This record gives sequence, C-alpha cells and structure tokens, in this order.
Amino acid sequence: MAPQTGKIICAGLGPGDPDLISVRADRAIRGARQIAYFRKKSRAGQARRIVAEMLAPDVIEHAMEYPVTTEIPFDSPEYNRLLAAFYDDWTARLARLAVDSDVVVLCEGDPLFYGSFMHLHARLQGIVPVEIIPGIPGMTGCWNAIGQPMTWGDDAMTVLMGTLPEAELARHIRAADAVVVMKTGRNLPKIARALATAGRMSDAWLVERGTMPNQRVTPLAQADLQACPYFATVLVHGNGRRPLSDSAADAAE
Amino acid sequence: MAPQTGKIICAGLGPGDPDLISVRADRAIRGARQIAYFRKKSRAGQARRIVAEMLAPDVIEHAMEYPVTTEIPFDSPEYNRLLAAFYDDWTARLARLAVDSDVVVLCEGDPLFYGSFMHLHARLQGIVPVEIIPGIPGMTGCWNAIGQPMTWGDDAMTVLMGTLPEAELARHIRAADAVVVMKTGRNLPKIARALATAGRMSDAWLVERGTMPNQRVTPLAQADLQACPYFATVLVHGNGRRPLSDSAADAAE
Repeated sequence: MAPQTGKIICAGLGPGDPDLISVRADRAIRGARQIAYFRKKSRAGQARRIVAEMLAPDVIEHAMEYPVTTEIPFDSPEYNRLLAAFYDDWTARLARLAVDSDVVVLCEGDPLFYGSFMHLHARLQGIVPVEIIPGIPGMTGCWNAIGQPMTWGDDAMTVLMGTLPEAELARHIRAADAVVVMKTGRNLPKIARALATAGRMSDAWLVERGTMPNQRVTPLAQADLQACPYFATVLVHGNGRRPLSDSAADAAE
Repeated sequence: MAPQTGKIICAGLGPGDPDLISVRADRAIRGARQIAYFRKKSRAGQARRIVAEMLAPDVIEHAMEYPVTTEIPFDSPEYNRLLAAFYDDWTARLARLAVDSDVVVLCEGDPLFYGSFMHLHARLQGIVPVEIIPGIPGMTGCWNAIGQPMTWGDDAMTVLMGTLPEAELARHIRAADAVVVMKTGRNLPKIARALATAGRMSDAWLVERGTMPNQRVTPLAQADLQACPYFATVLVHGNGRRPLSDSAADAAE
C-alpha cells in the first residue's frame, strides 16, 4: 500500500446558514479536492445544500447514502446490522480515498454532538489521521432564531431526543430549567404531552430550519403537531437568576 | 437626538481559537469601527485577547469593566444592585455610541447561552437595533478538545453550573447520560463529590482553555481540585445506542 499522505477532515457546518460556518471549516471546504457527506437515498442532502455555493468546480463528491432511515425500527437487530455494515464499508472507502489526498467530510451542526460522523470516527481510529473542526450545534442556531437568551445564571439545561419514552421525557423536563428536544417529527404529539405533564407546554417553541432562509418559529401550542419535520427542534427557555433593574424588568416582559 | 443609523452587533467568539469564529462574526469584527467587551478590572479580558490579531488599527475600544466579580456573594442584594446599575449604565452608553456607527460587542462562546451580553440585550430592546451572531459554545470547544463523541443515539445531556448545591448537582448528574459542568473554579471539590455520589467520577474530564494553544485535558480523578480556573469545564461523555460491528466495538474502547 502507498504511504498515507492524506487525512480525513470532518468539517462541522453549523446550523444551516453558510455564513455561520467557522473560518477554519470554510477554508477547508472551499479548498477541498474531495468531499463526502451523508444523505438519504435519492435526496440532495442538507449538508451538501449548505455548501452548494462554496465548492471548487472540479471537486470530487462522495455521497454516503444511508441504507435505511425509518423503514425499519431503529432498535431492531436488522437496523443495527445494516447500519454497522454501512459504516464499516464507508470507513474502508474513506481510508482508501484519503491515501494521497485529504477528504473533507461534511457534518451538520457539531460533528461530536449526535452526529453520524462519530460512527466513522470510532472506526477510523488507527487507520487514517482524522481532524475534526467544531461547528455551531443546530440547537444553538435554533435558540438564536428565536432571539431570546436560552439560559441565565444557574439554569440547568437538558438536551433530549424525541425518541425517548413519554414518561422519561416528562421526568427530564420537570427536572430542568431550559430544555431542548431534537428528533421531533412524528414524536411531536408525545413530546407535547410530556411538556404538558411537566407544566412547560406554554413556554415551548418549535423551530423549523433554524438560521435558514425559510426558518419558522412557532409557539408549540399553536403548531400543527401532525406535520412536523424530523429535524425541527423544540425549545423551552430558562429563566434563572439575573440582576434586575426596574427598567430591565419592564423590558424583559 | 440625531436619527439612529447605527446598531449593536453582538458577535459570538466561540470557544477561544480565533479560527473557530464564524465567517459572519469574523467579517463584523475585522470591519468594526467600534468594539466593546466585558472584562474584570485591570485584566486584558479573554474576549479582547481572542480578537487581538483581527482588529482594524484605528478601532475605538470600549472596555466594560465589571464593578464586582467574586468580592461579594452573587446572591446578595448589594451584588444585584451593583450589577444592575452596571448593565443600566452600559445600555445607555452603547445606545449613545451606536447613534451614528455600529458597535460590535464581543461575546465569548454563544451570546445567548449563559452570556453577560443577555443582560444588555434585555435592556436594549426598543432603544437601539440589536443583531446577534451565534458562536460555537465554549462547552462544544471543550468536548472537541477531548476529541471523543459527546453524545450518541438517545443520550440525554445536561448542562449544569458548578455554583448549584451539591445534592442538586448529584441529582442532575444521576439523571443524565452526558454531563457538562461550567463555572468550576473553587466549586470543583463539590462538583467532584457530586460526580462520585452519582457514580460518574471515573468518566469525568477537566478541560482548561479548550481550543486555545495552552489547552489542558485531564481525567478529573487525576486533577488538582484546589487549583482550577473558574472557566474550566467538567465533561462526562454519553455512551448511547449505536450500531456496533466487531471492529468498531474494539476501536471504541
């Protein structure tokens, strides 16, 4: 085998607005000779869409298409087997592709925060050098889309996946000051019930496509719970300790 | 009063490495004619240090010096009064400064996530236009400094302030899969006890100055609990559901 001269660079893309990519990731993406990105079968892919205006004209693209998304229950042995084989396969392919030229793997949000790249990262250890460039997490883009402080003072913030059982969601929400729920989609009615149980339904927001041109911010109580994209995010703001002046107390209303 | 033509732009600086600032914030900072930033009395200030190489030579600087930091208990009425007056004062000054030219306010991490700027943001509503540019939160820089995935699958992640009572810390840690504890410093021995109570001490890391040239990553069990900076962060990784192949199970060790 030829000596290894290339590496894998995983570039965090942030929440969706290309202008919110870090200076370092921006440079890596614009200079890339090879890129790779995850996408669902026969979809353009959100990661690829974010960098559409940034790529060199002769860049070589590798679309890593998930073998399955929601067709099989994610906790079934078959799902596990298919996904593991998919990650094993792309680990070997990326290692070969990176022998003599860097491959920039695009990753929405921050690569180490609930990202698919982590499954490659674990497998690539000791095979090819990997460099990770952090990104603004999607949830951070969502609370900036709302434009209100997410956490103050001693607030405890909990990040939850909408795939959790309802009782577990309610228990976590009750214990937290600020809450983020990701992976919403068809879990949204369950998430709304858990928020209501915990007494936080009226404080909750639904953010779709945060920081993107078509972003939408809706109080959850007014949202259509049956028509929610999987990547929409539910947020509840904290309300912790802060030094209040009279004028500020008015302004904060 | 002259017509308002300037605005306040709060630029999130991310975790510390200037290369991790977003493209939009980088542009705003390099083009700024006026900047403002928080700092402790007679300190250079971390925010100002991050942008040291980026500023125009003739930029006008406004250092917003906290009237008090740890000299008075943060939950005393006197602390509240001093801080509220400080934020009121700078709200009025920034509004005046922004009448005919934008002021870029520097904010470490993400401005809406436990940031001091939020106290100005609440007060500036309706007085002067405010634009916020998100940043990579400090905690995201810290888990990238460790270089291991922070959360997988259905992991619940909780962010805590080290200023919370020990029993409350332990209760939150026990309920979470992944944990971040900020505001450590002299709270570190208490945080370590809470982690031990919750059975997570051996999984915990201490990250000092994450993403900065002098960053330090230490297993918490090996750290000096008496000599920890206030802005160091404690992290415990989640270990949730993931599709495992045999080779990956080995690699993940």
